[in-house]
Amino acid sequence: MKSLIVKKFGGASVGSIRKIESIAQRLSEDRKRGEQPLVVLSAMSGYTDSLIQMAHKVHPHFQGEAYDMLVSSGEQISISLLSLALEKRGLKNKPLLAHQAGIQTSALFSKAHIESIQIEKVKALLKKKVMPLIAGFQGVTKQNEITTLGRGGSDLTAVALSSALKVKTCEIYTDVPGVFTADPRLVPKAKKQKSLSFSEMMEMSYLGSKVLQIRSVEMALKYDVKLHVRHAFKKEEGTWIINKKEGGMEGSVVSAIAHDLNTLVIKFNKTPSGVNFLSDLFTELGKEAVFVDIISQSAIGAPSRLSFSIPKTDLKKSLSVLKKLKVEKNISVINKVAKISVIGVGMASHSGVAGRFFSVIKKTKARLYLVTTSEIKISTVIDEKSLKKTARALHKEFNLY
Amino acid sequence: MKSLIVKKFGGASVGSIRKIESIAQRLSEDRKRGEQPLVVLSAMSGYTDSLIQMAHKVHPHFQGEAYDMLVSSGEQISISLLSLALEKRGLKNKPLLAHQAGIQTSALFSKAHIESIQIEKVKALLKKKVMPLIAGFQGVTKQNEITTLGRGGSDLTAVALSSALKVKTCEIYTDVPGVFTADPRLVPKAKKQKSLSFSEMMEMSYLGSKVLQIRSVEMALKYDVKLHVRHAFKKEEGTWIINKKEGGMEGSVVSAIAHDLNTLVIKFNKTPSGVNFLSDLFTELGKEAVFVDIISQSAIGAPSRLSFSIPKTDLKKSLSVLKKLKVEKNISVINKVAKISVIGVGMASHSGVAGRFFSVIKKTKARLYLVTTSEIKISTVIDEKSLKKTARALHKEFNLY
Repeated sequence: MKSLIVKKFGGASVGSIRKIESIAQRLSEDRKRGEQPLVVLSAMSGYTDSLIQMAHKVHPHFQGEAYDMLVSSGEQISISLLSLALEKRGLKNKPLLAHQAGIQTSALFSKAHIESIQIEKVKALLKKKVMPLIAGFQGVTKQNEITTLGRGGSDLTAVALSSALKVKTCEIYTDVPGVFTADPRLVPKAKKQKSLSFSEMMEMSYLGSKVLQIRSVEMALKYDVKLHVRHAFKKEEGTWIINKKEGGMEGSVVSAIAHDLNTLVIKFNKTPSGVNFLSDLFTELGKEAVFVDIISQSAIGAPSRLSFSIPKTDLKKSLSVLKKLKVEKNISVINKVAKISVIGVGMASHSGVAGRFFSVIKKTKARLYLVTTSEIKISTVIDEKSLKKTARALHKEFNLY
Repeated sequence: MKSLIVKKFGGASVGSIRKIESIAQRLSEDRKRGEQPLVVLSAMSGYTDSLIQMAHKVHPHFQGEAYDMLVSSGEQISISLLSLALEKRGLKNKPLLAHQAGIQTSALFSKAHIESIQIEKVKALLKKKVMPLIAGFQGVTKQNEITTLGRGGSDLTAVALSSALKVKTCEIYTDVPGVFTADPRLVPKAKKQKSLSFSEMMEMSYLGSKVLQIRSVEMALKYDVKLHVRHAFKKEEGTWIINKKEGGMEGSVVSAIAHDLNTLVIKFNKTPSGVNFLSDLFTELGKEAVFVDIISQSAIGAPSRLSFSIPKTDLKKSLSVLKKLKVEKNISVINKVAKISVIGVGMASHSGVAGRFFSVIKKTKARLYLVTTSEIKISTVIDEKSLKKTARALHKEFNLY
C-alpha cells in the first residue's frame, strides 16, 4: 500500500453538504491520480457545539457516557453523508464508527486516550480498494462504551491511524491554506510557512493557534508521522510539520507569532504569606480543572506580589476557589489583556532575542503584565489595546515577511 | 423482575428538551411506585425527517449502510439526552445503542428484520436496578453494520424487547390519549377506545391510522404481548390492544372508522386486453416498490375496465412504469379522493353491515371509486369533498358515540 495517505477533513471544511460534495470530488480525483486515501472526518462545523448546548441545558457540567454518546453523533452524520456523496460518484467506500473500526480508548469520558486500534479491519478494506471513512473524535472502551477524545480529537484519530498503518504522512485538511507566521487578521502581511518543527507547532498550539490540537502534534512527533496542514479546496501545498533540526534550518530565529485573547490576569493586591498558601491555591485551582498559564511572583520585599493568568472561560471556577480560600477581596481581575508570543527553534542558539523582543514592547508602549520564556519561545501578557501594533512590530522585527 | 414494564416513547412525546425532562420526571415517579421501566426511545420528532432530507439532497433514492447510519443518529441523541435528564434526578440508567444492546437484524437496510436480541446485557442491568434506555428503530447485522427497521421501527424494538424479556405488557407512549373511534379532527364526537383486538388494530394501521406501525402489532400478536397505547404526559389509561374474542365482546359491530388522504386512483380508459397485461403491470409496479392498494376490474363486456389506488407519494414511480408499458396515454389520474373504512371484529358475525355502509354512502351522495372488503372491514375510495360528512354519518350509523 505504497500510495496510502491518511486524510483528515475537519472544521469548516465539512461545514455544509456542498463542502462534503467538494471533499468527495477531491477524493475521487486523488483516486484517479493513484492515491489510496483513508479518510478521517470531524463533525460538520457548529454541529458539535449545538449538541453541547443541548447537553448543558439538560444537565450542566455532567461528564460521562451519555454526554460522549451525544456529542459523538456529529461524526456519524458527516461520515454517512460523505459515504453517500462517494457512492454517487461510484467510489467504493465504507463508513466506520469507532466501535466498528476498533478504536479502543481509556474510560476517561470527554478526554479519553487512544489505547489501541484493531487495524486489521481497515487493512482488509484497503486491500479490497474500499475507501475507509472513519469517524474522528470518538472511541470505545473495553466495555464498548462510547468515549470522545476532547476538542480537536479528530486530528488525534488521524495521527493514531497513520501510526497504526505505519504511514509516514498525515494530511490535515482545513479551511486555511496552512500555518501562518501570525494570524493574518491581526498581521495582514503574515505569510504561509513552508515548514515548522514539531516543537514549534506544539508551542503554537499551546499559545493560541487553533490549526492543530497539541496532543495530535505530540503524538505525531512520538510516532514520527509528518503532518501536512493544507486547504481542503485548493491544490497548493500547505505547511509541513516535521522533525527539523534545532537551530533554524532556514536561518530564521523566530518562526511565528501567536496570540490568544482568551486570557485574563488575576493579581493579588496583597499576597497571603507562606509557601503553604501558594500550594493550597494552585492545588485547589487544579482540582477545579482551572488551567493556570503564566505565574509570576516577585519575592523581593514584603508583601510579595503574585499574579497569574487563566483562560477567561475559567474565571467563574477560579473565583469560587479564591472565595473558598477567603482571599477573594484581596485580588484584582485584569480582563482586557492578550497573550502574545514569539516562537522559533532558532532562538535556542541565538542570543539577543529577548532583548529585541522587549525593545519592541518598549517601542509600542504595551503594558506588560506577565512574562514567561522557554528555549524556543517568549510569551507575554500585555494590554489588549496594544496587541495589534505589537504583533505587527514583532513580525517586522524578526523578518517574518 | 415482577414489575418490569417496557415503555416506548415516540413521536411528538420526545419532541423537545422540555418533553424529555417530562419523560424523565414520569419515569422517576414510576420508579417510586415500584415499577422497573425499560425504556425505548424514538428520535426527537422532525429530526429523522431532516436527516432524510439531507441524505436525499446528496444521493436521492440511495439505500444502504450509509443511509441507515445517518438516520439512526436521531435515537442516539434522544437516549443520551434522556440519560442526562435521569442522571440529574439521581436515577441510575444506561443508554444503549443497538450494537450495545445486541439487537441483531437482517442486512435489509432501511427495512431490516430483528433476528435476535442478546438480552443478557439488559437483564444484568435490570438486576442491578439500572434503567436501560434503548435506542429504537436501529439494529446491527452480524457484521456489525448499522441497520434501521423502517418507519415506526421503534415500536418494533419495544415489542421485540418485551418478547425477549417475556414481559406481557408493552406501553406505547405518544402525544394522543389512545386510539379513537375515528380521527377527532374529522369526527369531533370520536371517543377513545378502551380496547381493540390485534386484527382490528392491524386493519386500522393499514387503513391510515398512524398510532401504531402494523409490523409491531403483528409481532405483538405473534408473541402475545399486550400493547397499551397512552398519552405520555397524562395519568389516565389509554387503549389496550389485546387478544379479543372474535364476535364483538363489547357488542359493537364496528369498532372504528379510519381514513387516509394519501391515496389516488389510476383509471384505465381502455384496458389493454389479456391477462398478460395485468401480470406485467403489477409485476413492474412491484419492482418499483409502488404500493398498490385496492384493485378493481369489471370483466363484464368489452373493453374491460381497470382501476387501482396507490399512495399519492408513489405517483411518479407509477407513471414511469405506465410509460414503459406504453399505456400512459390510456389512463386518468383521479387525485382528489380519500379512503374511508369501517373496521370491527364484530362484522364477521353480523350480516347487513355492508348494506348499512352503502346506504350511508347513498345518503351522503359520496362518489364511489373503489371498494374492497374483508371479514372485519369495508374500505372504499370516495371523493375527498364527501369525506367529512361520510365519516360523521358512518360514525353515527354504527353507534360509535
